[in-house]
Amino acid sequence: MDFKKSKQTASEGSSILPGRPFRFQEFTMKLDRAKGTRDFMPGQKIARDYIINAIKRIFELYGYLPLETPVIERYDVLASKCTGGAEILKETFKLKDQGGRDLALRYDLTVPLARVIAMNPTLKMPFKRYQIDKVFRDGPIEKGRVREFCQCDVDVIGISQMSADAEMLAIAQDVFKALQLNVIIKVNNRKILDAMMDAVGITQDKNDILLTIDKLYKIERSGVEKELAEKGMKPAVIKQLLDMILIKGTNEAKLAKLRELFAKAFKWDQETSPEMPVEAEGLQELELLFKAAASMGVKPFFDPSLARGLAYYTSTIFEVVLLDKEIGSVGGGGRYDNMIGSLVGSGKYPAVGISFGLDRIYDVLIEARKFPTTTTQVYVIPVSIADMEYSVEIAKELRNAAINTDTDLASKSVSKNVEYANKLGIPYVIVVGENERKKKKFKLKDMQSGKEQELTIELIISELTKK
Amino acid sequence: MDFKKSKQTASEGSSILPGRPFRFQEFTMKLDRAKGTRDFMPGQKIARDYIINAIKRIFELYGYLPLETPVIERYDVLASKCTGGAEILKETFKLKDQGGRDLALRYDLTVPLARVIAMNPTLKMPFKRYQIDKVFRDGPIEKGRVREFCQCDVDVIGISQMSADAEMLAIAQDVFKALQLNVIIKVNNRKILDAMMDAVGITQDKNDILLTIDKLYKIERSGVEKELAEKGMKPAVIKQLLDMILIKGTNEAKLAKLRELFAKAFKWDQETSPEMPVEAEGLQELELLFKAAASMGVKPFFDPSLARGLAYYTSTIFEVVLLDKEIGSVGGGGRYDNMIGSLVGSGKYPAVGISFGLDRIYDVLIEARKFPTTTTQVYVIPVSIADMEYSVEIAKELRNAAINTDTDLASKSVSKNVEYANKLGIPYVIVVGENERKKKKFKLKDMQSGKEQELTIELIISELTKK
Repeated sequence: MDFKKSKQTASEGSSILPGRPFRFQEFTMKLDRAKGTRDFMPGQKIARDYIINAIKRIFELYGYLPLETPVIERYDVLASKCTGGAEILKETFKLKDQGGRDLALRYDLTVPLARVIAMNPTLKMPFKRYQIDKVFRDGPIEKGRVREFCQCDVDVIGISQMSADAEMLAIAQDVFKALQLNVIIKVNNRKILDAMMDAVGITQDKNDILLTIDKLYKIERSGVEKELAEKGMKPAVIKQLLDMILIKGTNEAKLAKLRELFAKAFKWDQETSPEMPVEAEGLQELELLFKAAASMGVKPFFDPSLARGLAYYTSTIFEVVLLDKEIGSVGGGGRYDNMIGSLVGSGKYPAVGISFGLDRIYDVLIEARKFPTTTTQVYVIPVSIADMEYSVEIAKELRNAAINTDTDLASKSVSKNVEYANKLGIPYVIVVGENERKKKKFKLKDMQSGKEQELTIELIISELTKK
Repeated sequence: MDFKKSKQTASEGSSILPGRPFRFQEFTMKLDRAKGTRDFMPGQKIARDYIINAIKRIFELYGYLPLETPVIERYDVLASKCTGGAEILKETFKLKDQGGRDLALRYDLTVPLARVIAMNPTLKMPFKRYQIDKVFRDGPIEKGRVREFCQCDVDVIGISQMSADAEMLAIAQDVFKALQLNVIIKVNNRKILDAMMDAVGITQDKNDILLTIDKLYKIERSGVEKELAEKGMKPAVIKQLLDMILIKGTNEAKLAKLRELFAKAFKWDQETSPEMPVEAEGLQELELLFKAAASMGVKPFFDPSLARGLAYYTSTIFEVVLLDKEIGSVGGGGRYDNMIGSLVGSGKYPAVGISFGLDRIYDVLIEARKFPTTTTQVYVIPVSIADMEYSVEIAKELRNAAINTDTDLASKSVSKNVEYANKLGIPYVIVVGENERKKKKFKLKDMQSGKEQELTIELIISELTKK
């Protein structure tokens, strides 16, 4: 700790708390959060809890069960070659315990899930789990990016059918419907991208080309063309690939067009052999996905340019973007049929999942909507010190009736107490004085309308519980 | 990462997943959690969520609002001299970000709260907040101790009156009543311990003596006597101090006895000056605490030997222990009137709080009680592949009626599906076959009683929602 750097002068100190008496401290450090982290004050945390509960509710509606894994994982597990890949390891927070063991903070919730599956061989499949928890990435702080953020993950292990992928889309649709946010759900299939690259005869590392394709929305066609050329692709091949990736039309039109292109590229006679060649497997999976999604009432948007950054996807990939706000994706995922088996060392573990980004959803909703600033329903105000004990009793009765109740414990004045309730946004106050105690009737004030009623405690309870 | 050490032989590999085909992997690391961390599988996480919700419910009933602070804090903030002290820093996980900044994982939720108060000078006081979150301590792994555990903290800043301390005891009583656990709430006051040490004329560092007193329950009187002697106290002084600390009787009897002892020690004539001398302030605070607690229906147990390890307490201290199980304390806290002001550098911030240990409470309850193993209410089973689409529709209808519903997406056999529902403990299954589709009546099976009913989907919904 460098005290010199953070030592404050008297004027700096008083600027932290203007108007308060300043007492010099020999060592006062700069009071701040770690870079890229945030606090959520009560009103903000209430909004976050509201969003979390809405998402959790949908996950459970679909039969997914909660799982909790630790924040700290062994570094070698997170760094396993079949998991997130080299890019994400650059952003992984590393630490050691007292025994000198190499540890790290989890960068996602999927690799820990894979570890849990691998460590519990008797788990009944399919394993449908959700986890809503913080993950950590020591990356650059851009707009909308922080170093500690909350992911809402739902995954199913053990189902290879596209109906599981479709269920992820149905969940996404229901989540954003519950949050009253208009979204578009984009889908693609890694096998289609692979086939496209095969069709144009790409000789470069496909994953590397995908990383560039993934930037289409950021750097546009011209930027991608430039980067692909730098990666050694010929202009004609680049044009051919991007024309394919950027085809327009309805989902059906795009599928038909790609079917035709693949037929030509892979010498597939659709008349004589209705079975698709293995190169076109992605198209077939996507058709099955659309069919299963339709039966669930979901119509995703086929975007052949969707690539997703992570290396472990093997088939379906999807991304959820807001229609009314440009803020990057608010959800994404896909099928990763090889990761868990590869981590286990044996066996087949088909898996598909989607993750919703709580922090971005929160950032959008907290700006657009009014959330309650408190969970407290009523504030009990004693008129004088002599009424405090009785106020506590009234508070106790209200709490026994499941009403969230606060009361003054510091013997402030009535006006200070009303100001406090007002500032916090508590919807009701009750005043308890000598008269009220004698009559056993209390003034219930609706802080918004200003309306006052004199009621018995029983009537106050029925008034407050009917809301 | 040391691959040599963790590289597996074929037989080691297959022992991870007995009965599964083994595929040799060049690099397979030991799949394990970080030392001192735990996973919570769905049945366990459901129990944890139940406990968290019960505690959160009580916190909100008392008008406390949620706060969220980051897992990662600046090291210099956590290491500030007015916070946890040198002992806890030895157990603090340190890390650096890419900018080389010194960071740490929070070891408690109180210091981050103090930082929030200090950084938000316009906060309305009193500030009543709760936070239920993980904290991290790189300590020895003993029985009941882990390195990553969840604390349920409730604190109020800005009230110096003992009624706030009493409210903490009322919250503790209500929390354990809600969890149906019998507890004893022990209280003491640091000022009383100080006065005792003054009364016997201790010249040693008082905090150091307290650390030994704190071990009374672990090493008993003889052990404490030995350790105090090693710290340079004379046998007569040790006897005098321990006799005082270990006085027996009702709360009132103990208070009266200490009042007498202090009167003697501090030459205080109770007849002529009813006001206590400053040395006996702790007794007066404790009497006020008992009075306020009584008005809230709480009767704590006065234990003059209760010391609590942390350095920052200034007055009331309390600890909650289970009556029926020896597992260390399940809650504890106290008043810390100097920490925040000292961190801010100016101003008065009286504060009192209590923290409940989720992990110990969980360990006790998961052993003693039966929790549901799933949140899913019903499992829809298609008789054949042809019934799958219709099953999905039925599931959708049930979900629209807010019933948590799972359905087979992998076209397993009916018997496999029944076995699955049974293994997961899903209370109901619905079978959907050709007959059922035609009749629009479905078999609803109660998996516990085995009872079957043939019902329309509307009746199934009303049957499942009345539960």
